[in-house]
Amino acid sequence: MSFFPASLENLVDHFASLPGVGRKSAQRLAFHVLGLPDEEARAFADAILDAKSNVHCCRICQNLTEGEICPVCASPTRDKTTICVVSEPRDVLSIERGREYNGTYHVLHGVLSPMSHVGPDDIRIKELLTRVAENDIEEVIMATNPDTEGEATAMYLSRLLKPFGVKVTRLAYGIPVGSNLEFTDDATLSRAIEGRTEI
Amino acid sequence: MSFFPASLENLVDHFASLPGVGRKSAQRLAFHVLGLPDEEARAFADAILDAKSNVHCCRICQNLTEGEICPVCASPTRDKTTICVVSEPRDVLSIERGREYNGTYHVLHGVLSPMSHVGPDDIRIKELLTRVAENDIEEVIMATNPDTEGEATAMYLSRLLKPFGVKVTRLAYGIPVGSNLEFTDDATLSRAIEGRTEI
Repeated sequence: MSFFPASLENLVDHFASLPGVGRKSAQRLAFHVLGLPDEEARAFADAILDAKSNVHCCRICQNLTEGEICPVCASPTRDKTTICVVSEPRDVLSIERGREYNGTYHVLHGVLSPMSHVGPDDIRIKELLTRVAENDIEEVIMATNPDTEGEATAMYLSRLLKPFGVKVTRLAYGIPVGSNLEFTDDATLSRAIEGRTEI
Repeated sequence: MSFFPASLENLVDHFASLPGVGRKSAQRLAFHVLGLPDEEARAFADAILDAKSNVHCCRICQNLTEGEICPVCASPTRDKTTICVVSEPRDVLSIERGREYNGTYHVLHGVLSPMSHVGPDDIRIKELLTRVAENDIEEVIMATNPDTEGEATAMYLSRLLKPFGVKVTRLAYGIPVGSNLEFTDDATLSRAIEGRTEI
């Protein structure tokens, strides 16, 4: 038996279906929304509908955008000969935060994962190949996550891209800035020694 | 500068305004909602609006309900001479889960808290006093949280209620069932010894 009114229970169900939100947290969030002024609750509901209807993928790089082309692809100051391949839109944000990279992106929207039945046709690989084939691209940087699936995807893509005569690179492995050698795992430390640079 | 489209950023802002949801989690939730099928995203938005417009307080006990009177107050089998006073609607759920209590409730929607500028007029005390004055109430159980503010609220209410000639009781303090004496704090253990019962 449920002790909450049906529409409150329904809202709790929706919150509980979000990733990382348990039943208790969902209740807390639902109570919070109930306690909001009417216009704020309406604004929240509208925000969901607006985002769903306005946001889609950039025609060129597949990153999320409201226009036909995302701001990065539309910018005249970005280096269009370099493409940084990432798995998710949030990874673009991480790299942009560094203010170091001035090229463009390509968002795969996933990584190859045989275990989860994600194959080459399920992520935006075709679009990347077309882009490299039709434009004057010099370098493709693989910036997928440094885990098994990210690695495999980077290797797979590099094999597909090499025939186009582009330089394919991978993010450097090594010790994170500000970290501590004592707590660095063996694999990272080995890669850091392997990739050592002259100072 | 924001790297997300405005309507996505707006949705992230709304999620980030929820209690216990940080910026990173909000982004994750917003991406999840973006990835939902259209009808599910719409159902989520509708759930917010429905809950806001349908749910209000029970005329008698102030618990959240969709009707004029909540199911507990409307039930003919519940003992209407006993009122259990709780601070939040979720506390009703906790007590109902125990399937032990058969009386009615009164939800204060807060506790007295001078630090947060919550005084007697800001919570549903007036409604409780009217209810006790106008009905044949035998016992009022104080089930506010066992913290400073919950304690103070219970003490304040008990002083207001005693003149009506009702029995005012407080939940028992003691060691939680299934816990471990070693990890029980001193204050709880003292109260457990003080309130010991014969076996």
